Amino acid sequence: MADRFEQVVNLCKRRGFVFPSAEIYGGFRSTYDYGPVGVLMLRNVKDAWWRTMVQLRDDVVGLDAAILSPPAIWQASGHLESFSDPLVDCRNCKARSRLDQLEDPDTCPNCGKHGTFTEARQFNLMFETHAGPVADEGSVAYLRPETAQGMFVDFKAVLETSRKKPPFGIAQIGKAFRNEITPQNFVFRTREFELMEVEFFVPPGDGPKWYEYWCAERLRWFTDLGIPPEDLRLRPHDPDELSHYSAGTSDIEYRYPWGWGELEGIAQRTDFDLRRHAEASGERLEYFDQASGERYLPHVVEPAVGATRALMAFLLAAYDEDEVKGEHRTVLRLHHRLAPYSVAVLPLSKKDTLTPLAREVLRSLQPHFMCDYDETQAIGRRYRRQDEIGTPYCVTVDFDSLEDEAVTIRERDSLEQVRVPVDALVGELRDRLS
Amino acid sequence: MADRFEQVVNLCKRRGFVFPSAEIYGGFRSTYDYGPVGVLMLRNVKDAWWRTMVQLRDDVVGLDAAILSPPAIWQASGHLESFSDPLVDCRNCKARSRLDQLEDPDTCPNCGKHGTFTEARQFNLMFETHAGPVADEGSVAYLRPETAQGMFVDFKAVLETSRKKPPFGIAQIGKAFRNEITPQNFVFRTREFELMEVEFFVPPGDGPKWYEYWCAERLRWFTDLGIPPEDLRLRPHDPDELSHYSAGTSDIEYRYPWGWGELEGIAQRTDFDLRRHAEASGERLEYFDQASGERYLPHVVEPAVGATRALMAFLLAAYDEDEVKGEHRTVLRLHHRLAPYSVAVLPLSKKDTLTPLAREVLRSLQPHFMCDYDETQAIGRRYRRQDEIGTPYCVTVDFDSLEDEAVTIRERDSLEQVRVPVDALVGELRDRLS
Repeated sequence: MADRFEQVVNLCKRRGFVFPSAEIYGGFRSTYDYGPVGVLMLRNVKDAWWRTMVQLRDDVVGLDAAILSPPAIWQASGHLESFSDPLVDCRNCKARSRLDQLEDPDTCPNCGKHGTFTEARQFNLMFETHAGPVADEGSVAYLRPETAQGMFVDFKAVLETSRKKPPFGIAQIGKAFRNEITPQNFVFRTREFELMEVEFFVPPGDGPKWYEYWCAERLRWFTDLGIPPEDLRLRPHDPDELSHYSAGTSDIEYRYPWGWGELEGIAQRTDFDLRRHAEASGERLEYFDQASGERYLPHVVEPAVGATRALMAFLLAAYDEDEVKGEHRTVLRLHHRLAPYSVAVLPLSKKDTLTPLAREVLRSLQPHFMCDYDETQAIGRRYRRQDEIGTPYCVTVDFDSLEDEAVTIRERDSLEQVRVPVDALVGELRDRLS
Repeated sequence: MADRFEQVVNLCKRRGFVFPSAEIYGGFRSTYDYGPVGVLMLRNVKDAWWRTMVQLRDDVVGLDAAILSPPAIWQASGHLESFSDPLVDCRNCKARSRLDQLEDPDTCPNCGKHGTFTEARQFNLMFETHAGPVADEGSVAYLRPETAQGMFVDFKAVLETSRKKPPFGIAQIGKAFRNEITPQNFVFRTREFELMEVEFFVPPGDGPKWYEYWCAERLRWFTDLGIPPEDLRLRPHDPDELSHYSAGTSDIEYRYPWGWGELEGIAQRTDFDLRRHAEASGERLEYFDQASGERYLPHVVEPAVGATRALMAFLLAAYDEDEVKGEHRTVLRLHHRLAPYSVAVLPLSKKDTLTPLAREVLRSLQPHFMCDYDETQAIGRRYRRQDEIGTPYCVTVDFDSLEDEAVTIRERDSLEQVRVPVDALVGELRDRLS
């Protein structure tokens, strides 16, 4: 199974899904760039989430809050105090290590010496910078380590402008930053990553009910998009691993090649955040229920998933190898909503006779689908390339097309080929891809 | 005209387009959050750009590079050296000012004293932070001030994986950060903003031709999406205002309420960036043309626009007031591709008799369009609310609907109302919104 990890990482680089950042300068400490097909797939992952969590519901609205944020927010949220890892220095080789991740807390993994560690110090995971011309204490700003606080800090403004009432949610997709000491496993744990989070605000007694609801709903999202149910599980946190704000958290775990690991977290944040921000800012962050005359601080259930981590799980689950006509084939069996390209247009030959029709077909499809166009090398080789990046349909324009005004649709998984009139192509593909 | 600016800023806040960040803590130095309708419109602006620049073309591919980046990139690009503003301190009141923006370079705008300024010092606009556990020189990282460098640094990887050849482009949408001393005019100039940039790589002699092409193409994008042509102009930079990398730049300027100002820049970056990165990294960043046997560093034309600045121009251009049946109306005449909601479903009354059908209509539309649903207060008032946020179509479910299985579509601009069978609603709206 570890092989699959290597194969997917290799495919990501070879076909332009994911590159290490700044690679011509030797790479840069656990940040990654999403290449031509990676950016398309990442957009699709985020769009699929937004569609499910915002577009198809009328009890969730969106938000896009700033990344740069003042210390006051992180003071109130508890991140300045508690969002840290314990670090030790080796007195012998000067290497710095994360104490809670050492196999032997008394042995330096760098030089192998025993008993050389300093006392552990807490190292805050937030990136710090300065806004404004003077780099002093008054200008400190943090890159957010989660998008959640934006939803709490803007709760009142969203409540007033959207006219929603609990139960309702605020959804956000955006970059977050954590100064991880031990980034690992490709895009599984990186210093810069993208989150998709909902804060779902409910009447105080309804937390547990909505927690159950969101656990089931989020599991379903992954299976609907092609992750096999047997590779997913819901694991409640032990009391001693709960975050400082949580009254109960479950992880949706995926069976990564290296074992079960977190894919999404669903947390009962209670009224912790709203209460702290209300106290710290002096603003009333309560909801006033006109019907009952009641005033209360809503409780919060938070389903939160990394977009880049989800992308990686979808890639791992989709990776497959089989044989086609005796030839080995690598194929990404991605759900059609996630595949970088929905359709590839492939003229059978590069000859001028076919090009005009092939490009006309391309132009007719582009307004509706993300399309690739490829006219170089043998058709079999071009099919293999599309299979490798998960394109669900190839449309082949051949010499018969000039006569019968029809083209061939070839399906990635079944390899089934059907002849379709050019006029009916958009409709046929739309049916298959909806 | 300055009134319009106030009106739009006011509308943005009142209806949930844009809020100042961290407002409950007194705001935070020129960053903004996009509220429930703002985030929908911002997504639409970005999607409209991506559609035009990537989806509808086959000579542009996408990229999503990291925000955190090592000094080596900004050393090579010239940003460490040249990307700065001249600052002066007032010896009397200690206020810091940007020298090139002072009305009188000898008078402090804060205390009014003359001749109190220190010598000007260059202040670099990049935000600095540290990655890794030790905050020393070796761990310095910068928040990118533009997305462009990601396209240059990844040029070779993109070339190899996408198999494109010049002329072709790399497109990117993403956050960028500039530590502006004088942020101003709402979201026009902020410290955190979102860019939409294409680096278009061409054979060395073809720069001027493609520069003309992109100037015309980008102007057309704005007018296609509803900016009146008379409020746009193309202004070539004077030689003394050219960036350090540019052999010619034109700004697409918009007639803001405070006068003409930059909306988009189209720059001939020549081979400056690729050459510098090749020299600094030791990587060959040339393109080898197999047909001619030629090897060359491509030249680059860059159309670059701020997504948030574009959003603001679209809002300003769309803002209108008129009278409907003797009543004053505020209406955002947004292009249907940009409007936060495409459709609002409005049951004529909140009565239980209508709710089931209204919600059924909503559910049938949600998979296809971003929809709002509103059942509170009088129907006239609900129309006004939708007009104010630019919703192009309202669908009204009334008591007749229970009998004739039809609903009324009401158009925002013409106020025209037509009766449509519920069965035909998706098709009718799809035609109007495509």
